[in-house]
Amino acid sequence: MSAAPAVLHEVPIDLGDRAYPIVIGHGLLGAAGTWSGLPKASSAMVVTNTTVAPLYLRSLTEALKPHFRDVHQVTLPDGESHKDWQTLNLVFDALLSRHSDRKTVLFALGGGVVGDMTGFAAACYMRGVPFVQVPTTLLAQVDSSVGGKTAINHPLGKNMIGAFYQPVRVVCDLDTLDTLPAREFSAGLAEVIKYGPIADMEFLDWIEANLDALMRREPAAVAHAVRRSCEIKARVVAQDEREGGLRAILNFGHTFGHAIEAGLGYGEWLHGEAVGCGMAMGIELSRRLGLVDAAFAQRLTALLQRAQLPVRGPRLGEDRYLDLMRLDKKAEGGDIRFVVIEQPGRAAMRPAPEAMVREVLAHCTA
Amino acid sequence: MSAAPAVLHEVPIDLGDRAYPIVIGHGLLGAAGTWSGLPKASSAMVVTNTTVAPLYLRSLTEALKPHFRDVHQVTLPDGESHKDWQTLNLVFDALLSRHSDRKTVLFALGGGVVGDMTGFAAACYMRGVPFVQVPTTLLAQVDSSVGGKTAINHPLGKNMIGAFYQPVRVVCDLDTLDTLPAREFSAGLAEVIKYGPIADMEFLDWIEANLDALMRREPAAVAHAVRRSCEIKARVVAQDEREGGLRAILNFGHTFGHAIEAGLGYGEWLHGEAVGCGMAMGIELSRRLGLVDAAFAQRLTALLQRAQLPVRGPRLGEDRYLDLMRLDKKAEGGDIRFVVIEQPGRAAMRPAPEAMVREVLAHCTA
Repeated sequence: MSAAPAVLHEVPIDLGDRAYPIVIGHGLLGAAGTWSGLPKASSAMVVTNTTVAPLYLRSLTEALKPHFRDVHQVTLPDGESHKDWQTLNLVFDALLSRHSDRKTVLFALGGGVVGDMTGFAAACYMRGVPFVQVPTTLLAQVDSSVGGKTAINHPLGKNMIGAFYQPVRVVCDLDTLDTLPAREFSAGLAEVIKYGPIADMEFLDWIEANLDALMRREPAAVAHAVRRSCEIKARVVAQDEREGGLRAILNFGHTFGHAIEAGLGYGEWLHGEAVGCGMAMGIELSRRLGLVDAAFAQRLTALLQRAQLPVRGPRLGEDRYLDLMRLDKKAEGGDIRFVVIEQPGRAAMRPAPEAMVREVLAHCTA
Repeated sequence: MSAAPAVLHEVPIDLGDRAYPIVIGHGLLGAAGTWSGLPKASSAMVVTNTTVAPLYLRSLTEALKPHFRDVHQVTLPDGESHKDWQTLNLVFDALLSRHSDRKTVLFALGGGVVGDMTGFAAACYMRGVPFVQVPTTLLAQVDSSVGGKTAINHPLGKNMIGAFYQPVRVVCDLDTLDTLPAREFSAGLAEVIKYGPIADMEFLDWIEANLDALMRREPAAVAHAVRRSCEIKARVVAQDEREGGLRAILNFGHTFGHAIEAGLGYGEWLHGEAVGCGMAMGIELSRRLGLVDAAFAQRLTALLQRAQLPVRGPRLGEDRYLDLMRLDKKAEGGDIRFVVIEQPGRAAMRPAPEAMVREVLAHCTA
């Protein structure tokens, strides 16, 4: 932990009466001042997992005590394989057994799985209570904690049951990234890299120039990567909160990636790893559609490799990939639609011929 | 079924971009024209239960076929005791196994339980798909299908897990009330009667004058009762969609009623029966608080009795009642707050001294 808390950036998300800030800095989690100005309530419930609890649960709980009469805790099993109803119900059990009322504030302390589940629990508990995202992984800080997508998985598909439900605040304490395993840090970089080809070529240039510093987790580089990622995501989400159109570009790499995750069983690959590989497939598809040249496809793939991300998918068989992708929620009316790079720095949704998708899969699986 | 479909009334609910109409009439369910103008989709999923399916599922399915390429069906077990996650998951299973996409339109064909569960399934499936309420009970037509409250029960409390999620249309086919058992019809009358003391004394006068006609289910009387109930509910919901304040008046009788339902086990008493009895308790509490006189309390209780509703609660013990009511979601920060009648035709939320609540329970339990 840093000696003194320091807010480096505050990124606003402009969503009218659902607007909220993303606060980025050092030493934030354990500082009581970080938690001022939240909705008034007599109780808070911190939701975390078995991995994060020993690291940060006590510190957050102590920092919340000046603000809430009761600060309760519930610790879930760790991992995407537990992102299901049974685990979600542990949160409801905890809330109800504590007689938590409809003003209770939930805190999601952990990575994307904890954030998605806590957000969905907050969306549903008594038809909606406030919640705060306290992401402790790079992936959650740059992507999943921002924008209000919450969900659990169903045996027949990932994130199939959920809600658009905005947090009241996101607090990204960069110090929490110090404890992140290398594999998880790389998985987070996949989503950072994503913002380049879909929205901001200057940012892609910056990532290329600073990837070594990022891999060494140099504080200034990490702070900029988190800030710029949040700014881009905030801009996209403010324009299209419920994914009517534009917001879908944030899913670049995700249709292929979800098929990898579902095909291998959730948790085998990290979500960010699957997305990284999915982007390698997505850029190959974009190339075959004649949208980007081979040099740009190669440039993106090489960057993913430098970030220690897989760029070749598991051999599930093309039919299985296609089945899984048809089930993905971006398939409407039977056609599979993909996020493609229309030109470097701009993404769009496009249907793709099945034969071409098969070629991409043949080209990009190990 | 009537020979020709006839729309008698259309009550708008003014909720900005979530506005929708309540269509009231005869012969609507089986007429293809009723289902024009809904969101475009390739598939529909009709959710119903084992009691309603043999009566109306085929008719609705045929009427939907001109509008959707695929019309799927899922039939749930009947009753409040099945308003749980396990049953809800049957809907998700059906949707996913049919590869239903995020435009699929759900139809809730049944009473309050089917409506609440289908609405919550629609709120959560792929983070939200459109749904239509097709209420087939009086209670659902005058209350639960209107206003966007959806939920399932948790073993520790009723409606604890849910969402505010508006349908795109509500279609009240009055003909479906012909098949309703007498006990269920009376349960629906409880919610009709409710609108009088909380909002409209003229309507209460009308109900008193026409209760015999209502009990005989005379079409003109039933049509007026459904229309006026929907108008009052629409006005309240438009002013306070998410129950920040005013909308709570619609819960008159519900805090006591929920305790009866939970204490006996869901499904023992019908929801409307519990609410009817809860109103008898609520008016007694209002009298003891000095808000209404004994004559008005007696007048309301007599009307409930004429509608064949229970006005004395089961002997659960006062401590048990109090425990159950503290868990109810209208308890915030430990105080039990009740909807009371401030004066005939006007309701408000008030905390009540525990000793007085105990007196009411002693006075109103069998």
